[in-house]
Amino acid sequence: MQTIDRLFQAAKQRYDASQPSLAECYEITRACLTKLNTEATLRRFGEFRGAPNLEYWVAEGNGNLSRPYRPEMFISDLAEFERAVVSFQDQMDDDDITDPVTFEKVVYTVVSSFCLCYDVWKPKSRKTPGTFFEVFIGSVCQIRYPQPRFQMTKHIPIVVEVPDADAVDDGALQGNSVSTDLVITNTVTQQGAVIPLKITTRERIVQPFAHQRILDSAYPGRYRSYLTCISEVQRDDKTTTVKQICVPGTVALFQKHLSELSGLYYCDIPQRYARQDFTALIRVTGIANLFDDIDDWLNR
Amino acid sequence: MQTIDRLFQAAKQRYDASQPSLAECYEITRACLTKLNTEATLRRFGEFRGAPNLEYWVAEGNGNLSRPYRPEMFISDLAEFERAVVSFQDQMDDDDITDPVTFEKVVYTVVSSFCLCYDVWKPKSRKTPGTFFEVFIGSVCQIRYPQPRFQMTKHIPIVVEVPDADAVDDGALQGNSVSTDLVITNTVTQQGAVIPLKITTRERIVQPFAHQRILDSAYPGRYRSYLTCISEVQRDDKTTTVKQICVPGTVALFQKHLSELSGLYYCDIPQRYARQDFTALIRVTGIANLFDDIDDWLNR
Repeated sequence: MQTIDRLFQAAKQRYDASQPSLAECYEITRACLTKLNTEATLRRFGEFRGAPNLEYWVAEGNGNLSRPYRPEMFISDLAEFERAVVSFQDQMDDDDITDPVTFEKVVYTVVSSFCLCYDVWKPKSRKTPGTFFEVFIGSVCQIRYPQPRFQMTKHIPIVVEVPDADAVDDGALQGNSVSTDLVITNTVTQQGAVIPLKITTRERIVQPFAHQRILDSAYPGRYRSYLTCISEVQRDDKTTTVKQICVPGTVALFQKHLSELSGLYYCDIPQRYARQDFTALIRVTGIANLFDDIDDWLNR
Repeated sequence: MQTIDRLFQAAKQRYDASQPSLAECYEITRACLTKLNTEATLRRFGEFRGAPNLEYWVAEGNGNLSRPYRPEMFISDLAEFERAVVSFQDQMDDDDITDPVTFEKVVYTVVSSFCLCYDVWKPKSRKTPGTFFEVFIGSVCQIRYPQPRFQMTKHIPIVVEVPDADAVDDGALQGNSVSTDLVITNTVTQQGAVIPLKITTRERIVQPFAHQRILDSAYPGRYRSYLTCISEVQRDDKTTTVKQICVPGTVALFQKHLSELSGLYYCDIPQRYARQDFTALIRVTGIANLFDDIDDWLNR
């Protein structure tokens, strides 16, 4: 894991310095796939019981079992991955996603191969996979939304006025901001697309809604949020099945009474969220549509 | 810990069945204090560097170090605890908190002694102390806000209408609710006091604000929230000092742009939150004032 860790730190450093970092992300994926193929066992775990049933696999090694993944979306073969990356890059360069299946396979493989490695060999570094997801999607956005027309940040500053300003001596109350994972702003219109990135949402689903609500209050009409995730799956070791952890009622409640998100974007869309009663309340679609949706909003 | 665990389960069962459970809570505290006094070392840990500096202690045993606690608020002596409980009960019975210091010492000791035991002997049961905090405060509320004039629940039902209701087959989207820790409703006026209970808030501070906002949207003017906590402290083992983890800017932002909480109630009030620039934005006070504030709102 030292190699992967070192590559990740290097990619993150470049990303944080606003330097191109997509090549570095692919390099990490190559290292992860190589390690998984040679030092772990990729095998069937069990099914998600739905309509239809879905097969999930896991990586096993080092005495650990990884999170479940969909084998037909995960490119474990390195040569096939290289071909898929070429297609992914072409689609990004052409601004035209003609093969969304391959496009989403690349996103799924890049993020999942990293997650599997951390699950197996560094299970205590729980936050690192989420950071890598952010670096990867952010790296793609760097290319698609270039300066100076667009600006990429992680925070939206919001000034909160303090009635008794004299008593403030550290300024902590005065300069504040909404910390999101990624914000892309059209520097001409000042409109912004907020992209909360969560590999899975779990109980943190409230955050993007709360942030959107704060932005609606502080900057009416200026920001929209696009919640971007990989999947919502969990191993159930007792039954060797996979659960899709969904909270449709909670999301519906938030969407109606807290704020409106512009969409939920997944690689492995949870079946419950794909149903028509739910998509009537909130757009739910594949991650391949994320950029086109943001383009529409930002007049790219 | 088997005895404490068994007592806790019994108290929780009674509480969940709406039976009086305060005596059971004290019994748990007696067992915790006895175990701490005989099987752990209660000792100085270090200081919080503030104005003034504050001394914090820890319980040490079983190879573990507990969270930090304020020794002058924690009653480790059993006989002294019994006397304090009598005072606590008298003040509750008289509806008149004449000795808030002792009142808050009892709350602090009941909750902290349980936390310390779990930190030392069952550190993996991370959620149990929070549940006990809820059982204890809920048990006090059962007495102070009796049926039938008042009603105590954990959820506030909110119906979310689903446009395409025919497609729903499990009803998950239709009946929903805001899950809070404790809601006390005046059955005559239908006004309610929401009491989110968190031993410390950490990153979960957004929840009570989001919930209040949803309630403002679904039931304008009917609910107020009273966020109730023990402290916001964390050990810093490197420097053997204690940090008070405060997010004044975030709270100010939420209070202004997300929703308004009616107050923050603490046993060990973080110094940053007690400062006047902050209390100008949101009421911050000792837990002894919680019930009087709720009384005012609910016309008790």
